[in-house]
This record gives sequence, C-alpha cells and structure tokens, in this order.
Amino acid sequence: MEPLRFNLEQSDIPTHWYNVVADMPKPPAPTFGPDNKPVPLEKMAAIFPMALLEQEVSAERWIAIPEPVREIYRLWRPSPLIRAKRLEELLGTPARIYYKNEGVSPAGSHKPNTAVAQAYYNSQAGIRRLTTETGAGQWGSSIAFAGQMFGIEVRVFMVRVSYQQKPFRRSMMRTWGAEVIASPSSLTQTGRDYLAKDSENPGSLGIAISEAVEEAASRADTNYALGSVLNHVALHQTIIGLEAKKQFDLAGDWPDMVFAPCGGGSSFAGAAFPFLADNAAGGKNGKLVRLVAVEPASCPSLTKGLYAYDYGDASGFTPIMKMYTLGHDFMPPGIHAGGLRYHGNSPLVSQLYHEGLIEAISVPQLATFESGVMFARAEGIIPAPESNHAIRAAIDEALRCKETGEAKTLFVNLTGHGHFDMAAYDRYFDGALDDHPYSEEALSTSLRHLPQVG
Amino acid sequence: MEPLRFNLEQSDIPTHWYNVVADMPKPPAPTFGPDNKPVPLEKMAAIFPMALLEQEVSAERWIAIPEPVREIYRLWRPSPLIRAKRLEELLGTPARIYYKNEGVSPAGSHKPNTAVAQAYYNSQAGIRRLTTETGAGQWGSSIAFAGQMFGIEVRVFMVRVSYQQKPFRRSMMRTWGAEVIASPSSLTQTGRDYLAKDSENPGSLGIAISEAVEEAASRADTNYALGSVLNHVALHQTIIGLEAKKQFDLAGDWPDMVFAPCGGGSSFAGAAFPFLADNAAGGKNGKLVRLVAVEPASCPSLTKGLYAYDYGDASGFTPIMKMYTLGHDFMPPGIHAGGLRYHGNSPLVSQLYHEGLIEAISVPQLATFESGVMFARAEGIIPAPESNHAIRAAIDEALRCKETGEAKTLFVNLTGHGHFDMAAYDRYFDGALDDHPYSEEALSTSLRHLPQVG
Repeated sequence: MEPLRFNLEQSDIPTHWYNVVADMPKPPAPTFGPDNKPVPLEKMAAIFPMALLEQEVSAERWIAIPEPVREIYRLWRPSPLIRAKRLEELLGTPARIYYKNEGVSPAGSHKPNTAVAQAYYNSQAGIRRLTTETGAGQWGSSIAFAGQMFGIEVRVFMVRVSYQQKPFRRSMMRTWGAEVIASPSSLTQTGRDYLAKDSENPGSLGIAISEAVEEAASRADTNYALGSVLNHVALHQTIIGLEAKKQFDLAGDWPDMVFAPCGGGSSFAGAAFPFLADNAAGGKNGKLVRLVAVEPASCPSLTKGLYAYDYGDASGFTPIMKMYTLGHDFMPPGIHAGGLRYHGNSPLVSQLYHEGLIEAISVPQLATFESGVMFARAEGIIPAPESNHAIRAAIDEALRCKETGEAKTLFVNLTGHGHFDMAAYDRYFDGALDDHPYSEEALSTSLRHLPQVG
Repeated sequence: MEPLRFNLEQSDIPTHWYNVVADMPKPPAPTFGPDNKPVPLEKMAAIFPMALLEQEVSAERWIAIPEPVREIYRLWRPSPLIRAKRLEELLGTPARIYYKNEGVSPAGSHKPNTAVAQAYYNSQAGIRRLTTETGAGQWGSSIAFAGQMFGIEVRVFMVRVSYQQKPFRRSMMRTWGAEVIASPSSLTQTGRDYLAKDSENPGSLGIAISEAVEEAASRADTNYALGSVLNHVALHQTIIGLEAKKQFDLAGDWPDMVFAPCGGGSSFAGAAFPFLADNAAGGKNGKLVRLVAVEPASCPSLTKGLYAYDYGDASGFTPIMKMYTLGHDFMPPGIHAGGLRYHGNSPLVSQLYHEGLIEAISVPQLATFESGVMFARAEGIIPAPESNHAIRAAIDEALRCKETGEAKTLFVNLTGHGHFDMAAYDRYFDGALDDHPYSEEALSTSLRHLPQVG
C-alpha cells in the first residue's frame, strides 16, 4: 500500500523557526509612526513583550523555539502531510497534490502556531492578561486556547455583529476560559465614543482593534496580541513549511509549486518562506519552488493594490507600514473567507512579491466553494473557506498539467477545517452566494487616501 | 522529550476486524421476529447485503477488512493514541491517562468506521442507494461521507425538529452529496400517515427508522444502513481497540481499565472487545483489563434496565433482541449526548455484561460537561458530549488513584469532537443545563411493556 500520509514523530518538531529576513535581498522597509519617524521598539513595548519585538526586527536566520512552546505544539503537531490521491484521480491529472492539514489544531486552524508562542513570551514577561480582537472568531479562539495553556487571562473584543450571528466560536473561547466582549463595548473610551454616537453600532475589526490596544496600553499587567501581518507572526508560522520539507523528504518528493491562501499573509508565509530559503541558495538540487499566494478576487491586495505606505488598520490607529494595499479605507466585500478580508498584506510578503521572489493570483468566491466541495467529496475533509482559495489554485494547476502531461508536485496549505463555516456552504448550495466583486470606484478612491510618509 | 502521541503508519492499519463472538462463553442469543420465531437471514436480505448478514451471525474470530475499505480508512486512520499528560498533571494523579482520538475522522466521530464498511459491501452487492435515519446528524453525516466514497446515493431521513434546529450537520451531509429529508415526510406511507394525523409532527428517531426501512424494503436498488446496536457494527468498530493495542505496545504500557461511552454500544464494543480477547486468553502477561461501559444516568440501560427481549426501536417495527433495555416505550430525557439516548443496548454488549465480563457505570449530565471543559482546558480538544461520559469516569478513577497512590493506566475512547455541540457547552456555561433525571414511574411503566418472546 503506497503511503498517503507522511507522519513525523513529535521529536521531529522543528527546534527553530526560520526567519526569511536573513535571505531577503534588501532589509525590510522601516515602519513609521504618526510623527513620520521610524517607530522605536520601546514605543511598542507598552503592548508587546520585548522577546516578540526582538523577533520583529531580527535578521537572524534561525530563532530557537522555546521548549515550553514545543511542548504545547505537541498536542497536535507535527501536523500531517497528506497526498490527495483521490482528488488527483478525480481530476485525472498526472500532477501529485499534497496538503498540510493545519485543521488538526485545537482551534481548527494554523493560528495557534503563533498564538501559543505569543502567550508563552507574554507569560515569561510577567504579563497576566492579553487582549485581542476577533471577527468571526478564528484568531480569538486560538489565543483563548493559547492563553489557557500558560495561565494567562484573555479578553477578546469580538465584532458585535459576529458576536450575535456566529455564536459557536464564541462558545469555543468560553470553553477555553476566555472572556468575550461584544465590540464596541462600554469598557473602553473608544467603545464608549462609538456607542454614544450609535448605541446599536454593529462593530468592525478596526473598532475592536482599537479597544483591545487601548486596554493593553493602559494596564501594566496586560498586553495585546495580533494574529497576522507582523514579522513575528510570519516567523512562528514557518513551522508549517519546515515540517512539510521533512515530510516531502520522507515522501521522496519535492514541490514544484506551493499554494497558500493569502490575506494578512501569515498562512502563506508559514508554508512558503521555508522553501524560499532553498530558492535563495539556488534551489534543492537546483530545483526552484514557485511560491504562489492565492488571494480573493474581492480583496486582491497583491494583484490589484499599490506597493506603498499605509496604515495596518482601517481607522489609522496603527503604525504605517510599507505593503501592498488597497487603501485602509477599502471595505472588502462580504465574502465568507473572513480571514482574507484585509485591505493590505504583510510587509514581508509584500516586499518579497515586489522583488519578484514570490507570485500571486486571485480567485473569485464561487470558484473557491466549488473546489472546496470537490475536495470534501474526494478527500473527506471539509475545508475552511480561506483554504478553498489555495485548493482552487492547485486544482487549476493540476488541470493544466492534465493538458500538458506534466507530473508537477503541488503543495497546498490547508489552513483549517470548515466546521464553523457550514452556513457558508449552505448558502453556496442554495445558490445564494455570488462572487462579491469589489467596486473599481471604491478602490480608486481608497487608493487616493494613502498617508504621506517616508 | 517523552512522547505523548503514539503514531502508527498506514501500513499498520489492522487487516482484520475482531469478532468477539469467538471468545464468548455462550453463543449470542437468537433474534426473534413478530411471529415469535428466530428471524432467518433471508428475511433481512431485503434491506442488508448478504456480506453484512454473514458477519452478523459469524463466529469466526478474525474477519478480513477488504482492501478498498482500508484504502478509505487511510484518509484518517490510524487515529492517534495520545497521553493526556497535562490532564494528569492538572489532577495531580499518579495514573496515566491515554485517549484514542476518533474525532479526527471526516465526520468527526467513530461512526465512519462502520459507515465505510457498510457502503463498501452494499456497493459490492450492486446496491446504488442507501437510506438511513439520523437525529442530530452524527450517523447521517458518516453514511453521507461513506456513500460518497463508493459512489452510492444516500437519502437521510432526519428527525424534523433536528432538521430545523441543528442545520450544520445537515450541511455536512449536503457537502458530501447526500439528500436530507425532514421526517416525517410525504415520501413514504409511514410518513404520510403521521402527517395526516399532524402536519406539524416534529418527528422522532422511531418514525425516521420506519421511513428509511420502508423505502429500502420497497426498492430493489436500495438498502438500509444502521449505525449501532447490530453485531456487524460492533465488529467494524473493533478497529479502534486493535489499533490501540499496537499503540500501547509502542508506548510500552498497557491499560488497567478501558472507558468508553455506551448508548447503542458500538463505541464501547470498538474500544473494549479487542482487550476482551486478551482477557479470554488469561490476560496479557496475566494482566486482565477492566472494561467499563459508561452510560448516562438519564438513560442507564445496563445499570438500571432488565436483561430481556425487546424491540430495537421505539415503535416495535424491528426484530426482537435480547438486551439490557429500559423498555422500548422509555423516552430518554433530553440530554445533549444524543448518541447515548437509546432505550436498549447492543445484544453483544448486553450478553457480555450479563456474563460479568465487562462492567458498567452511569454518570449524570452536569458532571460530564464539567469534565469535558476540564479536558478541553488541559488537552486543547473539545470533546463531544458522548465522549465526556468516558472522560468523567476516567477522571474519577484517576482521582481515586490519587488517594490510593496507584499508578493505573487508563484508556479513554474519545469518540468525537464537539464542534457541532457548542450550543450545549453554552447552555452549560449559562447554568441552563440540569441532570435531566428519568422518571422512575415512567421506567417501571415501560419495563412492563416488553414483548413476550422465546
């Protein structure tokens, strides 16, 4: 029986994360504050522990994973690399398709890879509480789990409309002991200001970020945690690609192309950056791996945005970062892949794309659900809507291989399961979904509202 | 780093299921029809394929698992055996606690172990369609998945009140291509009769079974599939315990006690029967394993029922089997562990209990949720309400070990994840759950309504 699953032992969990900065042609572009000056580390120390800030600016290639973090990773890691043989047969392709199943984590996605590390470093810094924001709850549930592992209290500001309409990830957060607050709330000045204007305000990710940061900045025992975009988040996620490389060695195979969904950039960074290390060294046995970020056609920061300085959040509250952006005013259409609804992209992913070291494509919503259903019927696993983006792109490539006869090896980052997204699948089956294209006019407006910096 | 997870390779998936009948002191008690005569196999052949009926009556110790079934098992099997080290530390117990995580299957429970086998044997018999019933959808989603794997159409009669209130397992079934019908429906005579009396009938598992069987019996291309109780279902589930034994060998450990939730009996049979084989042979190295069926205090067929002949279903439609029963009239209180709300128990489990070869205990609902939350906070995994019964019993035993200082090895069958049961956890946190004790009066009434047979 030819193996379909490539198991690593727990002792094979990588001992170091990979820092792509060491292999970038140029150092990362600096981040600016509202005063138009580069942001000093100390300024961020009010809400992040120094260990994470050091990782944020490090140029070291390898950064040791603390043993207590590996200890928690062991609850679900190494995650399996699986050959999608039944999908290949269904497509009739000579391509070989493999996927890394990050849905096996407690929270059901790749997010705990960084949440656990962040909770650990905060606990080491004597922090007793973390605040964060969450939309549908993927990130909130991950940090709730991670906080529980290290005895850290977690308060999650959850966008009010999601709090009301999507109760089950909220239930997960409660199960892991987190406090979940509908945002805007009366607990912060930001929240009270919004509620004073409109007591029925449905909330937004921007408001929730502001509330979480405000509370973290005002309390010495409390820090803030962010689930994407930042360099240290990308760093922690490289555990995905590092494990995958060991597993491809076990399989006696090596990817020609890597596909990962790309919103804020952390799941793409996690799968792709470790292969970029090989590319930078001339490729494994001279073979370069094509690294493909797959974004929603409704929110295509890499493929339709500008490479420019912009705010990390919608309300202009965060530092200003150089990234591919649709403009911080850009309101992404209401696609179900909530984790990809972000106006920008991570500075690291953006710079690598700008330098031509990675590729990007975009796919429309209906095509992603069509592929997700095909995947579920072939492989059994129901993927998260975000993951369906990478699956769609891999299926399209496999079908091209069918035409050309090429036996390419394709690697998909299956970032999570869809158990909390079944309502979206229902809407797809009911014909109630559409592609939610963005408005060209809105995009050109938001692109005119970029801050002047640098 | 001491290993916490004991991985098997896919080539280690057992090649044979274990049939406990070969090691029972007496042959299984016969099953009777409404004519008070043992039911001949041919009579059941209208709705089951002969291969399954042969397994139903086989006394062979080992029954080969067909390669196409192992091929599908490989999508998630072998399932991991995990040492619950963090839970042990939380309890401060010298006991070692291990759990087999059956929640990693596509449908999220142990049910696909038999669904896949049943779909395969039906496809080999030329059957193109299967009907079945489902309550909350655990079994329906498993057979939907399994049918999809072998190109068999699946029609699921889903209890109407669940169809309306628990839409997400219905969505899973749709994703795997099954047709889901609210029961009672206008598609069968049974359904039409109920609707004629009450067009708003909320349905019941009994009505849904009747609809599924009626349709299967009336169409040559269609069979019926059942997810628990029967001997062939218990047989297929033994893959759980067979894998676990290999994994305990890897761990260099061996259970003193096995805990599994017990409703219709299949998850208990799956975990426990393979260890009973060792007990029958004098125990591994002379060590006998205690096998503990854990049932809900609200529906305690083994611990409070009679060992007697009774109908397998509530409406007296099925053959009459010898089992521990609360009476087919007994309406189990509305606990959230829907998979354990069954008036009887499997004939095999019942006979073994009657012969003193296994044990049984019951636990009340609130205690099970308390343990599930403790488990989630220690181990990360949110268990299904059914699984929480086994977890509760193991925790209680671990706490006894803490008092006595015994370092027992405890094995828990974690039958599924709780991702589709978060509303139940919410009710627990909100203080809205109670223990739902059964009515002694209702029980004594239903025990007076057993059929006269034999």
